[in-house]
Amino acid sequence: MKALVFGGPGQRSWDDVDDPGIQDPTDVIVKVDTTTICGTDLHILKGDVPAVTEGRILGHEAVGTVVETGAAVSSLKQGDKVLVPAITSCGRCGPCKAGMAAHCDAVGGIGWIFGHLIDGVQAQYARVPYAETSVHLVPDGVSDEQVLFLADILPTGYEIGVQNGRVQPGDTIAVVGAGPVGLAAMMTAKIAGAGRIIAVDMETSRLRHAERFGATHTVQGGENAEQEILAVTDGAGVDVAMEAVGIPATFDLCTRIVRAGGTVANIGVHGAPTTLHLEDLWIKNITITTGLVSGTTIPTLLKLARDGRMEAEKLGTHEFALDQIEEAYDVFAAAGEHDALKVVLRA
Amino acid sequence: MKALVFGGPGQRSWDDVDDPGIQDPTDVIVKVDTTTICGTDLHILKGDVPAVTEGRILGHEAVGTVVETGAAVSSLKQGDKVLVPAITSCGRCGPCKAGMAAHCDAVGGIGWIFGHLIDGVQAQYARVPYAETSVHLVPDGVSDEQVLFLADILPTGYEIGVQNGRVQPGDTIAVVGAGPVGLAAMMTAKIAGAGRIIAVDMETSRLRHAERFGATHTVQGGENAEQEILAVTDGAGVDVAMEAVGIPATFDLCTRIVRAGGTVANIGVHGAPTTLHLEDLWIKNITITTGLVSGTTIPTLLKLARDGRMEAEKLGTHEFALDQIEEAYDVFAAAGEHDALKVVLRA
Repeated sequence: MKALVFGGPGQRSWDDVDDPGIQDPTDVIVKVDTTTICGTDLHILKGDVPAVTEGRILGHEAVGTVVETGAAVSSLKQGDKVLVPAITSCGRCGPCKAGMAAHCDAVGGIGWIFGHLIDGVQAQYARVPYAETSVHLVPDGVSDEQVLFLADILPTGYEIGVQNGRVQPGDTIAVVGAGPVGLAAMMTAKIAGAGRIIAVDMETSRLRHAERFGATHTVQGGENAEQEILAVTDGAGVDVAMEAVGIPATFDLCTRIVRAGGTVANIGVHGAPTTLHLEDLWIKNITITTGLVSGTTIPTLLKLARDGRMEAEKLGTHEFALDQIEEAYDVFAAAGEHDALKVVLRA
Repeated sequence: MKALVFGGPGQRSWDDVDDPGIQDPTDVIVKVDTTTICGTDLHILKGDVPAVTEGRILGHEAVGTVVETGAAVSSLKQGDKVLVPAITSCGRCGPCKAGMAAHCDAVGGIGWIFGHLIDGVQAQYARVPYAETSVHLVPDGVSDEQVLFLADILPTGYEIGVQNGRVQPGDTIAVVGAGPVGLAAMMTAKIAGAGRIIAVDMETSRLRHAERFGATHTVQGGENAEQEILAVTDGAGVDVAMEAVGIPATFDLCTRIVRAGGTVANIGVHGAPTTLHLEDLWIKNITITTGLVSGTTIPTLLKLARDGRMEAEKLGTHEFALDQIEEAYDVFAAAGEHDALKVVLRA
């Protein structure tokens, strides 16, 4: 089969590789119908994720069709259309039972293993471990595009942004960073009843996208951002500030715009420490949360997609055939130039 | 009357001052029967709290007897024995209605005003604003000593440590800092059902106290503390880490000993920023909380004291007459030398 293979920092290629096979009785093999590229894949290509070794097939978001099932699999069968999410979970360990598949013990404590510790889904076929406790049947009448982004960024925005942030109906929230995950947070915050949704980004083009995803106010990042955000709340600060960039400056901004008693929900993937101004914050009764998605909300998000309550497919701005994946990487890596959010790759 | 008057950094004296009088119809005047000294008072004396001006009477924890009531006061009368807590709250503003009296709008957004923005309770008499929504009647048969520490440190340990930390029955918790507030956190965590309670402090004498307040394990602060704490949890990390010191090193320790999905509850008063290792923490699904006590749990704590379920009076290690308060300050400021926790001052 063909697959997108990591060849070490800066190296990737659409290569011939061996077809995957069942290894454990809880595995299934899926034919990949639709997949996409994540910002994390770009980090891997830069060499930022040393656990990813040369020869690894990348990708952790797909919609596929089951073509083979392991001996222990009873609830999935050939021909089933499934969403393969970023997180693999055994369903049996302490973290899984606690609803925290992100930290599944069975796969080493971090549930994200596709395109990381095992071969991923940017390929014609993929082996899916712990299939029955990891994949989701796609509801009838729902297209691949409608559910593809429920593999990672939608539940990330919802669980790590909206749920961790404890967004309540009527809350004023700020989402700092209007990339795909930030937009997913806005979209799900709107569904959860957020009142004012303030999108913050350096790029005007992303602020325009934000308006399509529920933002009621937009603020250009930079020196005046703090005052402009505070002005929306008459100086009190937002109920929930979500960080969806992953750098110290935006995290710090979130801690300055949150009201006393509010929450800073960190969604961004950080590569560096930040300064936490506890000398100001100790007295403010704030909550700061971090997290990797567990996917506990995917069943709910699938229903919202099925019922037309959430148009997740709007995140896909560019389409390619799967064998054009190298071109798709080029476009996604230069997303600003192309005004791209997420790319959709179809087999 | 006599009162402990702040005379600028390093200056305090037991002085003759004017008796307080009713200023607002919601005020009461209390005769102070029992009071104590807080670590915050020592900070004020060092000049760390510039809002406290010369001539201010210090103190924010007392048990007293109502001697005069304002025209609007209907539920308190002369002779009532009341606990005067650290937080003053109007009961009517948004934060008060949300259970966050710590940020009462009516007193300027920070509910701690006694011995800070208005005259305090280290005095023979004190004016108590918003009395009906701030003070608590002391249950019959309960001594001043049994409830005195419910004015501040017990609810601080309970609300900002145990409740913010979301301690569940059976949880393993670490309390870093075994001073009075840390001990209050241990005492209330035990009541809340914590399983293993790990006390961490540099001082052996404080670790001995910790064992009297519910600690099941003690760990000496320093280089090996992290490994020793992790060993108690078989390497997984504690469910809840409480910071009760107020310096960067102990806060950082808390973020290193907390398990994936756990909570760091900051109780300490910080004077400096800290480094937050988001490059490690972003993926750990942790929650960090900060806070100033609101006192919402004081009614519950009063019942626990009344019913003999919580011996808060054990925190009082030294007793003085109120007019010996200068000596009491000397002992409290050198608490280590005297093996002192809290001092009790009786009128």
